[in-house]
Amino acid sequence: MLARIGRATCVSASQRFLHVAVERNAAFGQISEKDVAFFEQLLGAGGVVTDPDALEPFNRDWQKKYVGNTKVALRPRTTEQVSELLRYCYSRRLAVVPQGGNTGLVGGSVPVFDEVVVSTAAMNRVLEFDEVSGTLVAQAGAVLQSLDEYAGQRGFMMPLDLGAKGSCHIGGNVSTNAGGLRLVRYGSLHGSVLGLQVVLPQPLAGAAGAGSGGGGGGGDGRVLDLLRTLRKDNTGYDLKQLFIGAEGTLGIITAVAIQCAPRPASVQLALLACPSFPAVTAALRTARRMLGEVLSAVEFLDSPCSHLATAHLEGVRNPLLQGGAAEGGGGGGGGEGVTHGSVGSAPFYMLVETHGSDADHDQQKMERFLEAVMGDGSVVDGTLAASEAQAKSIWRLREGVSEALVRRGAVYKYDVSLPTSSMYELVEALRARLAAAGFGADAGVLVVGYGHIGDGNLHLNISAPRYDDGLLSLIEPYVYEYVSRHNGSISAEHGIGLMKAQCLSYSKGPVAVELMRRIKEVVDPYGIMNPYKVLPPRPA
Amino acid sequence: MLARIGRATCVSASQRFLHVAVERNAAFGQISEKDVAFFEQLLGAGGVVTDPDALEPFNRDWQKKYVGNTKVALRPRTTEQVSELLRYCYSRRLAVVPQGGNTGLVGGSVPVFDEVVVSTAAMNRVLEFDEVSGTLVAQAGAVLQSLDEYAGQRGFMMPLDLGAKGSCHIGGNVSTNAGGLRLVRYGSLHGSVLGLQVVLPQPLAGAAGAGSGGGGGGGDGRVLDLLRTLRKDNTGYDLKQLFIGAEGTLGIITAVAIQCAPRPASVQLALLACPSFPAVTAALRTARRMLGEVLSAVEFLDSPCSHLATAHLEGVRNPLLQGGAAEGGGGGGGGEGVTHGSVGSAPFYMLVETHGSDADHDQQKMERFLEAVMGDGSVVDGTLAASEAQAKSIWRLREGVSEALVRRGAVYKYDVSLPTSSMYELVEALRARLAAAGFGADAGVLVVGYGHIGDGNLHLNISAPRYDDGLLSLIEPYVYEYVSRHNGSISAEHGIGLMKAQCLSYSKGPVAVELMRRIKEVVDPYGIMNPYKVLPPRPA
Repeated sequence: MLARIGRATCVSASQRFLHVAVERNAAFGQISEKDVAFFEQLLGAGGVVTDPDALEPFNRDWQKKYVGNTKVALRPRTTEQVSELLRYCYSRRLAVVPQGGNTGLVGGSVPVFDEVVVSTAAMNRVLEFDEVSGTLVAQAGAVLQSLDEYAGQRGFMMPLDLGAKGSCHIGGNVSTNAGGLRLVRYGSLHGSVLGLQVVLPQPLAGAAGAGSGGGGGGGDGRVLDLLRTLRKDNTGYDLKQLFIGAEGTLGIITAVAIQCAPRPASVQLALLACPSFPAVTAALRTARRMLGEVLSAVEFLDSPCSHLATAHLEGVRNPLLQGGAAEGGGGGGGGEGVTHGSVGSAPFYMLVETHGSDADHDQQKMERFLEAVMGDGSVVDGTLAASEAQAKSIWRLREGVSEALVRRGAVYKYDVSLPTSSMYELVEALRARLAAAGFGADAGVLVVGYGHIGDGNLHLNISAPRYDDGLLSLIEPYVYEYVSRHNGSISAEHGIGLMKAQCLSYSKGPVAVELMRRIKEVVDPYGIMNPYKVLPPRPA
Repeated sequence: MLARIGRATCVSASQRFLHVAVERNAAFGQISEKDVAFFEQLLGAGGVVTDPDALEPFNRDWQKKYVGNTKVALRPRTTEQVSELLRYCYSRRLAVVPQGGNTGLVGGSVPVFDEVVVSTAAMNRVLEFDEVSGTLVAQAGAVLQSLDEYAGQRGFMMPLDLGAKGSCHIGGNVSTNAGGLRLVRYGSLHGSVLGLQVVLPQPLAGAAGAGSGGGGGGGDGRVLDLLRTLRKDNTGYDLKQLFIGAEGTLGIITAVAIQCAPRPASVQLALLACPSFPAVTAALRTARRMLGEVLSAVEFLDSPCSHLATAHLEGVRNPLLQGGAAEGGGGGGGGEGVTHGSVGSAPFYMLVETHGSDADHDQQKMERFLEAVMGDGSVVDGTLAASEAQAKSIWRLREGVSEALVRRGAVYKYDVSLPTSSMYELVEALRARLAAAGFGADAGVLVVGYGHIGDGNLHLNISAPRYDDGLLSLIEPYVYEYVSRHNGSISAEHGIGLMKAQCLSYSKGPVAVELMRRIKEVVDPYGIMNPYKVLPPRPA
C-alpha cells in the first residue's frame, strides 16, 4: 500500500528524484475490534473516535495536503492513560501518530496510512504557575493562546508567539521546536523549556508495574519525568532537549514546564517601507544597534505578500498604501494583477517591534531609530501603531500572508535559514527560473518571500493556480540544493515531518543521520512512534 | 585497584553511604611503549607528555582534591588528530579523559586511574567570526577570556562569564554546560551554542576510511559535524544538545559555534547591603520589575563570604565596610573572628548589574530601582561603581570567594538549585546541624552561601581547618536529601563528574538514568570516554 497524499509536494518529488516510495511497514499491527474495545474501556466511549466523518479532521492537515487513513483517534485525559495506551500499542505493534493542534506544515501530525492518532486535545489543564518566577507547567494539549492569556493575567507572557497560536498546542510547539515571531528576543524553546514529561513507547526501568494494566502507568517505566521548573540543572545529559523538535518520533510529550517572560509594560510596533532588500538588512542592523535590548521582533514581507494578504483576507489593509488602488482592487482569484514593484507600493515592508519596561525610554529609542533609518534612506515610509488595535491590524497583514496564499490556490511552502544579507536572492533566482520555464506571473505563478529576518529565516512560497508536477520539478530539488550550497537549513522552523524526510541529507551529514537513527532505535525499537517521518529509511 | 583520591568528598561518602567503590575497569587496555610511539608519530614529540613531573598538572584538579595516575597526556592540534587518536584508543580500548582548562569542581576532567588525557590546550584558534551577526566559531581549546576579548574588539561579548574565565576553555564550558554570572540575561549554552563539532569514540557512518590510518580522520565516520552558525535549524533531533553538559562522556568537542551578544554601550554595577535574606529576594523582585530588560546579573554573598574574600585575598575590599575593622583584622588562618551578622557589616550583599544600549536610560532605571529598594528597606546601604576599576573591584569581592575558601583550608563545595525564596534556609539548617555536633564557628567551621540568586542557584560551602570524615558524614547525604526533598537540583552548574556520579538519583529518576545509560552505550559501547564519571554503575 502506498501512501495516499492529497496533493503531494516533497514526497512525490522524492519519489521522482530519489526513487524512494513510502510504503506501509508490514510489521505494524492492524486495528481490530478488540483493540477498539480496549481503548474504549481505558478512555471511555468519548475518548475514542472511530466514525469515518469524525475521523476526517484527524486524518488530514489544515492545508489538505496530507491525507491519512486512520481508523481510530484517541483522546486521553491523563499521562497514565497515555502510558497505558502506549503500553498496549507497543505490545500490539500498532503505529502511533501524536497530534496536537494539527497546525503543522510538513505533514508531521497526520497519519500516512492507518496509524492510531493520539490527540492531546483533552489534556489542556494548567498544572502549576509560579507568580514570582513566571514558570508555567501545563498539560501538552493546552492551546498556546490560552496559556498566553493565563500568563498575561499574572504579569507574564509565553516566550513564543506564532500565527497558529489560537489552535496550536504547547506540546506540539515543543515537539516541533516552534520558532515564531519573537525568537529574536526570547530565544528558542531549547532555552525556555525547563522540563518535560514524556511517555516512551517501551519501558526503560522499574518493571514493577509492567503488566499491571488499568492505570498506574507511571509505574511501568514508560514515563520519563523531567518536569522540573529549575532554571539551572546540570545533572547528567539534558534529555528533554532530545524531545524538543523530535516531532513525536521518540515518545509523546504529556506535560511541559516553561519559563514565561515578564509581560512588557510598553509595546511599540512600526511598519516600514524599504526600497530594496539591502535596505531591509541595513534597517535590521540599525534596529539591532539602536533598539538593542528592547527589540522584540523584526519581520519582513515583500510587496506581493502584502498584496496577497490585502486581496484575499477580509479587513486586512496595508496602512502604507493609500486607497488600495495599487492593490488590484481586491479582485480575489488568480488575477489580482499583482506585479513586482508596482507603482505606489514599496518592494519590501518590515515590522519592527519593541518590548520594554519604560514607555518613555522605549519611545525615545524608537524615535531615534526611525530618524536614523529615514535619514540614511533604508526606510522610505513608515507608520507607528498608535493603539493596540492598529498594532493588531499591522500584525494581521504579516500573519495573514500564509492564509492568503492558501486561499489563492495551490501553494508550495519552503522554510529555510540562509545568510541574512543574501537571503532574498533565492526568491529572485527561483522567480527567474520559473518565469523562464513558462511559470511566470502571467501564468498566475507568484514567487514570494517573507519571514523572520531577525533570525535569518525566510519563508519562500510559490503560489500557483493549481498543483503541477512540472512546476514542482523546477522547484525541487533546486531549492534544497541552493540552501545546502549556501550552508543553510532546509527547515528553519517547520520541521521535517513527512514532507522533507527524504531530504534530510541536504542539511545533515551521514554521521548525524546515523546517530539520530540509533537514538530512535534505542528509544523505539519497533519504530511505532510517528513512522515515515523525520528520518529517511536506512539505505539498502 | 581503587581510585586514589587526594581528599575525597562525595566519592568516599558514597563508599560509606552507598557501599559502592570505584574500581578500575579491567577491560580497559594499559598504556604500552608502542602506544606512546604511535601517539608521538601522530602528534610529534611536543604533543605527547609522559614525564611524571610534567604529567602532574594533568593528573590533578586545581583544588588538589582529585588525583589521577595517567601515564600519558596528549595535545592534538587538529580535529583530524583527535579523530585519529580516538580511533586508536577505541581499537586498543584505552580509556580517555578530555581535559580543557581543568577548572572544574567535581573531578570531571582528571583521570581516576590511568586514563589517557586528551588536552584541548593546543586547539585554541578562532576559526570564523561574523561581524554582522556576531556568530563565533572557535576550536575547543580557546580560552573564554581570550574569546571575549576577541569578540569585544568587534563590538560583541561572549554570552557567558565565570570566575575561571582566564583559564577555562570554551570546549570545557560547553561540555560542562557552564552557567556563570550572566545566565539571567543571556541564557544557557543550550540556547546560545549554535553548532558543535564532536569526535565520537566509534565510527557511525561511511566506513570508507575506517582502516586507513594516518590522518584524514574526518573520513572515517567519527567526526560528527554540526558546526553551523544558523540561528534556526529544525532538521531532525538537535544532537548538539546531547553533548552540552555530557562532561566528555560521549565524545570530544573539537569546535564550537556560539552566538555572541552585542557588547553593551552602558554597564552599571551596584553593590548593596541587605538586612536579611527575605530582603535580598525582595530586592531581586524589584530589580526584575524595574530594571527589566537591562538587568544582566544578580548575585549575592553572605557576610562570612565577604569577610573571607577580604581576609584571604590581596587587595580585595568591601567598599561598604569602612576601615576594615569588622573584617577581623585580616588575620588569615582559622581564627579570623568571623561572626554571622557582625557589627558594622550587613548579613547579605548583592551585586546588581545592568547592560544596556543607552547610558541615560540605564542610569534613570538604576536610580529609580535604588530609590525603591532603599525606600522599602530591602537595601540598607549601597554603592554604585563610578568607574570600570571600581566595578572590577566589586566583582573581585564576589568572584574571589571561591579562591578565598580554598586558601582558608579544607572546603566542601555544593552547588544546588532551590526555590529562591527559601534558598538560604539550607545554609542556616546545615550551620545549626554542624554546630550542634561540635563543628561550629568556634571549631573553625564556617558554613557560607553565595551565588547566582537571579537563577535560583546557591553555592553552599563548608570551610574547615582540615578535611574530616566525621564532618563530611554530617554534610552528606544530608545536603542531597534536603535538595531532593525540595525538588531542587544537586548540581545547578558544576556538573556531576566523579564527585556526584553516585548521587545522580537524588535529582534524576530511574527512567531518566536508564535512558542516559542507553545513549551512552549507543555512542560509546566500550565505555572508554571519561569513565567513572556522570553515570553511576548499573545496579547488579
